[in-house]
Amino acid sequence: MREFPIKGYERIMKEIAIFGSTGSIGKSALDCIRKAPGKFRIKGLCAYSDIRTLAQQVKEFSPTCVCIVDGLSAEKFKSNCNKKIKVFSGRQGLLEFSAHKSDISLMAIAGISALEPLMINLKHTKRVALANKESVVCAGSFVFDAAKAAKTEILPVDSEINALYQLLKIHDAPSSNGNRFEKVYLTASGGALFDYSKRKLSKVTVRDVLAHPTWRMGERITVDCATLVNKGFEVIETHNFFNLAYEDIGVVIHRESKIHALAQFSDKTILACVYPADMRIPITFALHYPRRATYPCGIDFNKAFSFTFQPLASKKFPLLEMILAAAKKDDNSLVILNACDEKAIEYFLKKKIRFIDIYKTMEHLFTHYPSKKLNSVADVFYWNTWASQKTKEYLQTLC
Amino acid sequence: MREFPIKGYERIMKEIAIFGSTGSIGKSALDCIRKAPGKFRIKGLCAYSDIRTLAQQVKEFSPTCVCIVDGLSAEKFKSNCNKKIKVFSGRQGLLEFSAHKSDISLMAIAGISALEPLMINLKHTKRVALANKESVVCAGSFVFDAAKAAKTEILPVDSEINALYQLLKIHDAPSSNGNRFEKVYLTASGGALFDYSKRKLSKVTVRDVLAHPTWRMGERITVDCATLVNKGFEVIETHNFFNLAYEDIGVVIHRESKIHALAQFSDKTILACVYPADMRIPITFALHYPRRATYPCGIDFNKAFSFTFQPLASKKFPLLEMILAAAKKDDNSLVILNACDEKAIEYFLKKKIRFIDIYKTMEHLFTHYPSKKLNSVADVFYWNTWASQKTKEYLQTLC
Repeated sequence: MREFPIKGYERIMKEIAIFGSTGSIGKSALDCIRKAPGKFRIKGLCAYSDIRTLAQQVKEFSPTCVCIVDGLSAEKFKSNCNKKIKVFSGRQGLLEFSAHKSDISLMAIAGISALEPLMINLKHTKRVALANKESVVCAGSFVFDAAKAAKTEILPVDSEINALYQLLKIHDAPSSNGNRFEKVYLTASGGALFDYSKRKLSKVTVRDVLAHPTWRMGERITVDCATLVNKGFEVIETHNFFNLAYEDIGVVIHRESKIHALAQFSDKTILACVYPADMRIPITFALHYPRRATYPCGIDFNKAFSFTFQPLASKKFPLLEMILAAAKKDDNSLVILNACDEKAIEYFLKKKIRFIDIYKTMEHLFTHYPSKKLNSVADVFYWNTWASQKTKEYLQTLC
Repeated sequence: MREFPIKGYERIMKEIAIFGSTGSIGKSALDCIRKAPGKFRIKGLCAYSDIRTLAQQVKEFSPTCVCIVDGLSAEKFKSNCNKKIKVFSGRQGLLEFSAHKSDISLMAIAGISALEPLMINLKHTKRVALANKESVVCAGSFVFDAAKAAKTEILPVDSEINALYQLLKIHDAPSSNGNRFEKVYLTASGGALFDYSKRKLSKVTVRDVLAHPTWRMGERITVDCATLVNKGFEVIETHNFFNLAYEDIGVVIHRESKIHALAQFSDKTILACVYPADMRIPITFALHYPRRATYPCGIDFNKAFSFTFQPLASKKFPLLEMILAAAKKDDNSLVILNACDEKAIEYFLKKKIRFIDIYKTMEHLFTHYPSKKLNSVADVFYWNTWASQKTKEYLQTLC
């Protein structure tokens, strides 16, 4: 009988930590790992409070440790779980969990709260598959500097940025003979309210906004898609990830979300990156890179379909313009706007304010904040807390 | 006064010979060269009989030699032209012209008559920008073997094959980590008669067939687009150029001719190559490769537009199926069908037969030819002449 080389086999298995395993991206990532038996071993899973889903994941993937950020949920989980698993809890627990070694981390915690664990984790992993936008938007230079210092690679999971990564990293490589793209385009679905008139926008319900035409995602990002704040964030991500000037980054409306990004050479040849609106495809890329894994479902050429494009009427999306104006200021304004957007959406989702009050609140904060340079990650946290508080105060006046 | 380094400057200018300079591709190529002053020098121009256009081109580009294949036209040209230009004439003159040294040759002679000059020219140039399909379809292995032996690179100009070249040559390069595409798709506009019913097809006029929806091209290729023979040829070109198995090459209907080819990795990421239906873009690529030149007009993202796709109903296009069946036979059948198609279209364009008689003629030849292996280029010429003669005989019975 031929002996199975267990040791060698284990050595090539990559150890993975998933931050945000019970969210939409986390679940998709676990499905990708399920589809690649023998390639990955789940070392750690981290959730905010959904211990029911986490318990199922623990049962299936047997991690060595888990982290539950919400203290009460952590206590409940501990009392029921296998004693062999190490359980971290609370914000402090999250930071300790972030210092665990892994080959790949998937950072899929939502919002700016991903930044602190990310900054720690960058020193303890070889690759971060980054699904969190806010960290790159609010603290891009700190994140990339830390990654460079730790020699940790960051692979974008966000579909548009992932698509650009696939186009730019390969075509700007030595084999492409030093040819650079002269312009890149991110596509935008336009979100759930794209065809709404200004009048109709004033009566929008939570349900309306959450009915995204192509993607199933978390609630905040779905609202950000409707306001195009999300697309503004992606333009900034593109700028930070690929060192591209803002004037070389375009946005084009593409309702079907199948072409995720396009890159144009000076000879007007465009390369486009196309795949179904299924986050498991960019996650698969980020986990297996530089190899290509096999994924079962792609674009079906046995059916008729269309890809439509239309120019972005940016006046219809004042928040996108605001975000891009903030980006060019190179100060704390993106931190302010991100915190404000997060808080305002929280109030909208709780039905305490109207949809159009999100605009009003953002405008208020953007015209009433002290512009300061960001000198450290601590500054990011400071202005995030400041803006959350100021936003809350303003929102109370609207409720 | 600063001296202009004439010698060094001249040395980096590439010397170009254009075969078929008065045709659609030839004129486009000269326009590309006009747009890149100082980069190229026209060494030779070759035309069949359009000496009026040729005379203008000679005046503008001052080649050292020209070739006019039609003997009478050549005599007329000689009597009027500058005596310093060497003029080759007739079929023999074409072969001598083909043996002139150049840095780049654009082979844009139509039909199988390009094969003989191509086989000679491959030994005397460093790069062939190949716009002729028939040579690769009928004699692919001889052409590529000769290119390999002469260390001459062949760059495809045909938009679909050019698009695949851009996708495959770069992404299958070492920097793409050995990942190969699992499937490629060529797009097909469907030609001028795509929406015609079977009944309507029987009444098609020459004018109907030549009304191609997206491209302005030579007459034979426009008819070949309507029958999809052209797409069959491109599938064979793809097979020969990139060593891809026939089952990994798909065809999808895309009426707008903006996406020219798509290539899919195993993880279902697709890269697509996109540019307007303007042959100057792939010609620019083939002339400047590995550098990217600047071309002024690309896809306009300031306007709304759609890319539509639909599966190919191959039963509607029996000639495509016939061409692909012939390709898999690996004998002289493609030579037979190409000669037959050429001759039948000639008769159709002269209004001697109906459009549907092209189908009838092809079917007759495909079921009445002696299947033989091709052992040399001489065999290709033999069977080409044989099939032309047999086709003519059959066509007489239809006139």
